This record gives sequence, structure tokens and C-alpha cells, in this order.
Amino acid sequence: MSDRGLLIVISGPSGAGKGTICSNIRKEMPNLVYSVSMTTRKPRVGEEEGVNYFFRSKDEFESLLAEDAFLEYAKVYDNYYGTPKQHVMDLLDEGKSVLLEIDIQGAMQVKERFSDAVFIYIVPPSLTELSERLHNRGTDAKEVIDKRLSLACSELALAHRYDYIVVNDDLADASEKVASILRAESCKISRNKEQIQFIYKQYQESKEK
Amino acid sequence: MSDRGLLIVISGPSGAGKGTICSNIRKEMPNLVYSVSMTTRKPRVGEEEGVNYFFRSKDEFESLLAEDAFLEYAKVYDNYYGTPKQHVMDLLDEGKSVLLEIDIQGAMQVKERFSDAVFIYIVPPSLTELSERLHNRGTDAKEVIDKRLSLACSELALAHRYDYIVVNDDLADASEKVASILRAESCKISRNKEQIQFIYKQYQESKEK
Repeated sequence: MSDRGLLIVISGPSGAGKGTICSNIRKEMPNLVYSVSMTTRKPRVGEEEGVNYFFRSKDEFESLLAEDAFLEYAKVYDNYYGTPKQHVMDLLDEGKSVLLEIDIQGAMQVKERFSDAVFIYIVPPSLTELSERLHNRGTDAKEVIDKRLSLACSELALAHRYDYIVVNDDLADASEKVASILRAESCKISRNKEQIQFIYKQYQESKEK
Repeated sequence: MSDRGLLIVISGPSGAGKGTICSNIRKEMPNLVYSVSMTTRKPRVGEEEGVNYFFRSKDEFESLLAEDAFLEYAKVYDNYYGTPKQHVMDLLDEGKSVLLEIDIQGAMQVKERFSDAVFIYIVPPSLTELSERLHNRGTDAKEVIDKRLSLACSELALAHRYDYIVVNDDLADASEKVASILRAESCKISRNKEQIQFIYKQYQESKEK
């Protein structure tokens, strides 16, 4: 009776608050599965296979690439990062919803392969606010922050390729909006064909009694 | 900066719980405006002009009809009922969201004139449940109930023309789903073009500083 799970793609500039929003959503919706990426970089202390990443060799990754086995991938410096397609498809077929927190380039790759996914773009209310957040975070050098801000500007021009935009000026409010989007998408007619069919059959059967 | 309000159309068979869900939503979202219908029937005791209905003569209604002044209308026995178009458009232009609780025939008329509206179909979980609710309500004769049940069956076949389906097996849960749909629709990219433009301009300006 249940229809397929939702594939949810969340993007936004570094400092928009994606990570916190995603972890709020996962607390509220424990059935949501966080997609585990595959990477060729070495595991850091404390990182676990299949939890933080699927760790693979460069050869293995490239042979999977040749088989078109990724929903999206990127090469950052010398390492590959990607979302294994089959893993996500299996979860969706089981009726589970899958959350991908990826950058805009990755999101656009997913859009080409899986137009039925839900694309959510998280933005900070202003560039000034974003700049403050990145400085307060204290993890990036000034040049890195400038690069991130400039990237945020050019990426906003691609926002129209997403389905939803959530302005994060208040974390609780933004998290509630994202949760609402997921609940709403689950009510879409196009995602409930099996359930409608089920109710319709029931209606017909009790009419015949 | 703000974009246009949402036009929300809620339908569903008699006994689905539309009325209760709508009043729950209005409590939670006080900015939502309930559209007042126009009718040619006489006011009942306690009914107020502009609150329950706009009361008009048959002549007046028919001349408005000739001017295409309704988003939807119906003639029930000898009386007309309709949703005045200009009234709704003015509210939407002011950025207010407007809720229409109308039957499926009315909803299909609105869809032809205003495809940008949000169409939500509320269904009871089963015909047995619907039948019980209508009997328990005690307001309709058995023949009327049978007619309503038969109508519910044929109308369900039109559910695919709506955007969302909400199965009302629990009132609080169904109300929350409808509220989520409204919040989600407000985050749609297509409904936030002005806001995106506003943020984009801000970004560009602070970049130039």
C-alpha cells in the first residue's frame, strides 16, 4: 500500500545552517535515512565504515564511476566523494525517505538523474549575516571565507532550479519549514497513487456490500 | 518584497472533516482569510452580511455572473452560491492567503481560472468510517447519507486533479498535514521570486562594499 520514499536534497552555502537543520529534522523524523557518501580519502580517527563514509580505494571508486554507480560525485583535490546510487534506490524502494546534504553542483547532478527528488535550498537572510556566521565559526581563514561568500552569491543565481527556498533567520523556524516541506511532499497526489487506489478499492467494495 | 498570497482550495466528501480541519488551521494561522461566499438565499437568523455570506438578489447575482465575476459558482435548487473573484484577488494582491472550502465541482472551476491555487483533497480513511460519521452526526436522513456515500465514491476518482491528498484518520494529524502544506507552499521557489531577487540584490550590494 505504501508508495516510494522521498529523496530529499538539501543544499545551501557554507554557513547557511544546513547541518544543524538536517540534524533537527532527523530528530523529529526518525524514519528519515541520512545517505552515507563514498570517498577515497583516508578515514579520520573515530570515523567508521558505513557510518561516516564508505571508504574505498581510488581504483574501486573509478570502476564504480565507469559503471554510472553514483547519483552525484565530485573530485576535491585528490579525493573522490560520491553518493552511491544503488544504496539510495534500495532505501527508497523500501519506502524509506533519504536525506542528501550536498553542494549545489551535486544537487544539479541528482536533478538530472532523479527529477522526482525534492530540492531544498537553505539561505542565510543576508550576506552580512553569512559573513558574520563564518567569522564566528572561526574554522576558516579570511581568504577561505571570502571565497565562500563569493560562491554564495553566484550560487544564489541557481536557486530557481530548486523546488523550495528556506531563509534561515531563525533555526527553529527554518527547521520547522523543512519538516513541513517533507510532510507536504508526502501528501502530494503524485506520491500517493497506490494509497488512493487502495482507498478507492475499499470504497467500491463496501459499496457492493 | 513580499510575494502574492496563496489561494488554498479545500474539498472532500461531506463527513471528511473539512470544516473542523479548516477551523483548526485558522486558529493556527490567523493571517489566513476565509473567503466569504455570495448567495441569493435569504439570511437565516443570526447570519450577518459579509460575515456568513454576501446576500444578494437573484438579479444582482445573475448580472455578476454575466460579468464573469465569480471564481466558481453553483445553483442549488433555486439559489445561487458563488465565490466573488475580485474580493479574493484583492486579498491575494495584499499578500494575504485565502482559504476556500468548496465542493469538487467548484474546485474544478477554480482550477480552470486560477491554476496557481493549492488544491487539497481531504478523505476519510474508508467508506465504512465515512458512513459511521454521517450516521453519528444525525443531521441527514438515510437516503441523503446513501447519496453522499455514492458521491464520495465517484468524486474520489477525480482526486488526481488535486495537488495533495490528506487522509483524515486523526484530526490533529490531518490538520497538521494541511498546515504543513501551506507552510511548504509558501517556501516554493515559484512563490518567492521577489524575495529571492531581494536577497540577491542585498548580496550583490554587500559584495561591492
